[in-house]
Amino acid sequence: MEKSVIKEEIRKQGEFVRQLKLDKAEKEKIDEEVTKLLALKAQLGEDASSGKFVLKTPKGTRDYNLKQMAIRENVFDTIIKCFKRHGAGTIDTPVFELKETLTNKYGEDSKLIYDLKDQGGEMLSLRYDLTVPFARYMAMNKIQTIKRYHIAKVYRRDNPAMTRGRYREFYQCDIDIAGQYDPMIADAECLRIVYEILSALKLGDFVIKVNDRRMLDGVFAVCGCPDEKFRQACSAVDKLDKLPWEDVKAEMLEKGLTEETADKIGVYVQMSGGQELVEHLLSDKLLMTSKCAMAGLNDIKLLLRYLQIYQLGNKVSFDMSLARGLDYYTGAIFEAVLTGTAVNTNQPRIKGETVGVGSIAGGGRYDNLVGSFDPKGRSVPCVGVSIGVERIFSILEAQLKADGHKTRTNDTEVYVISPQKNFLEERMQIITELWKANIKAEMPYKRNPKLLSQLQTCEERGIPYAVIIASSEKETNTVKLRTIDTREEVSIPRENMVKEIKDRLQICKNNTDQN
Amino acid sequence: MEKSVIKEEIRKQGEFVRQLKLDKAEKEKIDEEVTKLLALKAQLGEDASSGKFVLKTPKGTRDYNLKQMAIRENVFDTIIKCFKRHGAGTIDTPVFELKETLTNKYGEDSKLIYDLKDQGGEMLSLRYDLTVPFARYMAMNKIQTIKRYHIAKVYRRDNPAMTRGRYREFYQCDIDIAGQYDPMIADAECLRIVYEILSALKLGDFVIKVNDRRMLDGVFAVCGCPDEKFRQACSAVDKLDKLPWEDVKAEMLEKGLTEETADKIGVYVQMSGGQELVEHLLSDKLLMTSKCAMAGLNDIKLLLRYLQIYQLGNKVSFDMSLARGLDYYTGAIFEAVLTGTAVNTNQPRIKGETVGVGSIAGGGRYDNLVGSFDPKGRSVPCVGVSIGVERIFSILEAQLKADGHKTRTNDTEVYVISPQKNFLEERMQIITELWKANIKAEMPYKRNPKLLSQLQTCEERGIPYAVIIASSEKETNTVKLRTIDTREEVSIPRENMVKEIKDRLQICKNNTDQN
Repeated sequence: MEKSVIKEEIRKQGEFVRQLKLDKAEKEKIDEEVTKLLALKAQLGEDASSGKFVLKTPKGTRDYNLKQMAIRENVFDTIIKCFKRHGAGTIDTPVFELKETLTNKYGEDSKLIYDLKDQGGEMLSLRYDLTVPFARYMAMNKIQTIKRYHIAKVYRRDNPAMTRGRYREFYQCDIDIAGQYDPMIADAECLRIVYEILSALKLGDFVIKVNDRRMLDGVFAVCGCPDEKFRQACSAVDKLDKLPWEDVKAEMLEKGLTEETADKIGVYVQMSGGQELVEHLLSDKLLMTSKCAMAGLNDIKLLLRYLQIYQLGNKVSFDMSLARGLDYYTGAIFEAVLTGTAVNTNQPRIKGETVGVGSIAGGGRYDNLVGSFDPKGRSVPCVGVSIGVERIFSILEAQLKADGHKTRTNDTEVYVISPQKNFLEERMQIITELWKANIKAEMPYKRNPKLLSQLQTCEERGIPYAVIIASSEKETNTVKLRTIDTREEVSIPRENMVKEIKDRLQICKNNTDQN
Repeated sequence: MEKSVIKEEIRKQGEFVRQLKLDKAEKEKIDEEVTKLLALKAQLGEDASSGKFVLKTPKGTRDYNLKQMAIRENVFDTIIKCFKRHGAGTIDTPVFELKETLTNKYGEDSKLIYDLKDQGGEMLSLRYDLTVPFARYMAMNKIQTIKRYHIAKVYRRDNPAMTRGRYREFYQCDIDIAGQYDPMIADAECLRIVYEILSALKLGDFVIKVNDRRMLDGVFAVCGCPDEKFRQACSAVDKLDKLPWEDVKAEMLEKGLTEETADKIGVYVQMSGGQELVEHLLSDKLLMTSKCAMAGLNDIKLLLRYLQIYQLGNKVSFDMSLARGLDYYTGAIFEAVLTGTAVNTNQPRIKGETVGVGSIAGGGRYDNLVGSFDPKGRSVPCVGVSIGVERIFSILEAQLKADGHKTRTNDTEVYVISPQKNFLEERMQIITELWKANIKAEMPYKRNPKLLSQLQTCEERGIPYAVIIASSEKETNTVKLRTIDTREEVSIPRENMVKEIKDRLQICKNNTDQN
C-alpha cells in the first residue's frame, strides 16, 4: 500500500514538473494570444464574470422528458423480460473506474475516454463500455460462470451527431454468458435472444449475420496477406456493407496489399449463405491449409445447426465480410441488421458497437478479456451481445410520431373530480380508498377546480375514468363514474365503488390484451 | 454564441498562464521533493511502470452482485409502483452538468463535487443530487407543472464510511410535484407516498415528523436571535434528535446566543405533538408577533388536517426541532424516521439527504429553486420527497441475512435436462417451445452433463421444475416433469407440455400470492 502511494506521488509530481518545463517561447505565445483576446473581450463591452450563464445540458448529452422515458421504459421492459426468460440476472458497476482499468483496452479510441479531474486520490475515468467493467468484475471476484445483463449509460468524448442519434452519454444494453462450456451452445442462445427481442419490438424485418474472427484471419493468411496487415485488411473488409468491392479493393491496395492478394480475399469475403456455403468452404483446397479457418468454419457449422433448432434459420446469414470493430473478439461474431424501411427514419450509429447502416445489435465471443485482468492470467470464456437501444429509441420515437400516436406519460386509471365548490375533503376521502385498493388515481391539487378543466385533464392525459362527487352524491352516499371516451356516466353506491372500478379496469385490460 | 466561445477561451488560457507563473521557489521545492521520492523508489527496488495494477473499484464505490441487485430491484419495483399509483412519470438527466449549474447550490459541501478533467470544451461536474438538475430542467424547458420521479446515482467526494453504508456513488430516489396549486394538497400527497412505501417495504414502525421552515425562523426571531445567527441556531436545533437539550444549548451559547434567547428557543423547539399543539401555538402571545411563524403554523394545521383524511394521522408528529440540512427549503419540511428495532442492524447516513439516527426519507417545499435558474427569475413552486433507498437496501440485506433467507438471482421456472448422452438437440427443441410460450427456461450449456449436477443446479438456483428427456420419452413422444421440491415426477405427452407447465406455474403463483 505504502509503495503504491509513493509511486502515485512520484507520478503526479513528475507530471506537474513537466508542465512547468513548457518552454518560454510557448508561454510568450500564449500571453500574446491572451492579450488579443482580452482586447476582443473589451470590445464586446461585457464582463465575463457578470454574464448570465447558459441554461443547457453538456455538449452531446440530453435530458429525457416524460414521453421519451415512457418509450425507453417500454423498450427496456421488453428486453429485460427476454433476458429473464433466459435465466439472466443483473449486476451493476460504478460509473467510473480506475483509469488504469480502461488503459490499453480501446486502442486508438482511448482518446475518447472522459477522465475525472485529479482532486487528490485515485485517477478515475468514466466507463467507455460495459464489457471491460464486466471483465474487471469477473476477475476481481474470481467468478467462473455467470449469465448477466447490464443496462447502463456509457461515456465517449466523441464528436456528437445528435440529429443522427449519436451522443456522448448513451445507453448500452448487454447480455453475456461466461463459463467453460461446450462450443456454440451459449453463442446460439445469444442469437435466439436477439431474435426474440427484435421480433417483440416490431422494428421490421431483420437479418442476423454471423462470421468467425478465425475465418477472417485464415482467409487473410491463405491469400498471402502479411500478418502485420491483418488489421488494416479487416477494417477495409468491414466496409463491404456500405461500399462496392472496387472501393474496398482500392483501399487494400492503398494499404500495401498486392492486387493478387486483394483479389483472392475479394472472392472469399463476398460470399454469404448458409449451411451449403459452409460445406463448400470445408472442402476448399486453399482454405483447408489454414487450421484457424477450419476451426472457425466448424464452429459456424455447429452454430448454424443449433440456430436451425432454435427456429431462426431463415433469419441467419453466414456473411464472410462481417468483421466487427472491437479487438477483443476471438471466435464467433454477429450483427443484426434491419432490412425493412423503418430503418431510414433515423440513422444513429455508435462506434464500435453497432456498425453498418441498419445495424441494431452486435456481439461475439471474447475468451481472453477476463484473463487480461487476472494477475495469473486465468481466463473465463465469454460470449455476449449488445442491443443497440439508442437506435431502437430513435426508430420507435420516429414511428410513433409518424403514426400520430399519443404516448401516455402516466398510468393513471381514475381522476377524482367535482363540479361543485368545497368538495376537496370528499375527493381526498375517495382517492384514499382508491389508493388503498391499488387503483392508480389522481385529483386536481386545487380546492375548487373548474369542471371543464378537470374533464380536459382526463382527455389530455388519457385517463380512462373519472369519479365525480357533488352534493347529490354526498346525500345519497353514491358517486358518479364517468367513462371518458364515451362520456357515459353511471351512479354507483359508494361502498361498491372500488369493486366496480376494478371490474371495469380488468375488462379494459383484457380488451387491450386482445388487440 | 461567439461571445461565449471567446470568453471560454479567455478563461481557459488565463488559467493556463496562471499555472505557468508559479514562482521558481515552488518549482525548486518540488524538484527537491521529487529527487527524494525517486531515491525512496529506488530503495523499493521496483519499477513503477512494471508493477501489477490493483484490481479494485474506485474508493467509496462498489459493484452490486446478482443477489444485491435482486434486492435492489425489488425495492425499486415497490417504490415505482407507488409513484405510478399517484400518477407520476419519470425523466432523466445526464450524469454530469455544466460546472456552473452546480455552483452556489450546496454551500460548504460544494467541495465534495466531482469535477471532470478539462479535456477541452466545457467544464463539467458529476451531479451531486437530483434536485438541482431537476430545477435546471424545469427552467430550461419552461415547465409549469409536472409530477415526476427520478431514481439515479449521485456523486459526492465525501469521506466514505462503507461499513455504515455511506458511499461516494449512491442512489437517490426522488418524487417531486411542481406547480402553482392550493396550499398543502401536494405536500400531503408526498407524505401519503412516503407512508405507502414504508408500509409496503415492511421496515418496521416509523413516524413522519413535520415542521415548517418559517416556524423555525419565526421562533428564532421572536426569541431574540439575530438574523445572521439563524443558520447556526438552526444547525444546533437539528441535533436535538441525537443530543440532550443541555448540549444543544451549550452549542448555541458557544455560537454567541444569549442564555435568555437560548432558553426561550429551547421551550419552543422541544415541543412536539399534533393538532392540539398547533392550536396552542396559534394563541401563543409571543409567537403571534411573527407573521412568518403564523403563516407556517396555518400551513401545518392544514397539512395535519389533510393527513388525517389520508389516514396517516397516527404516524405524523409536528416536531418543532425538525430543521433539515438543505438551504433551499422555503415551507413545509418533513422526515420519516424508523422507530423499530430493525434500525440498528446498519446505520448508513447520507449527508443532507437522510439525517438522524433512523431517518429513512425526507423532503420539503422549495418554491424558489427553479427561479434561481430562470433568466427572468420566474419561479415554479415545488414540493418533493427523497426516499433513502441506500439505507433501505442495507436494512433489507441485513434482514434477509438474519432470516437466513435465500435470495433468488434468476426467475427461471423450468430447467431442461437429460440423464442420457446425446440429447442436446432434443433439449434445444424443448426449450424453444418453452421460450415461445413465454416460460422462463434454462438448460446446461454442455453436450452431456451429469444428471446429478443438473438436479443440483435446480436446487441451488431455486428452479421449481425440471423437464426431463431420455430415450423412453423420445420413443413415446412424452417428457417427464419433475417438481424439484417434492421430487415427484409425472409423464406428460409432449403436446401437452406447455399447457401443463403453465397450469402448474399459475397454481404456484397463486400459492405465493396467498402467503
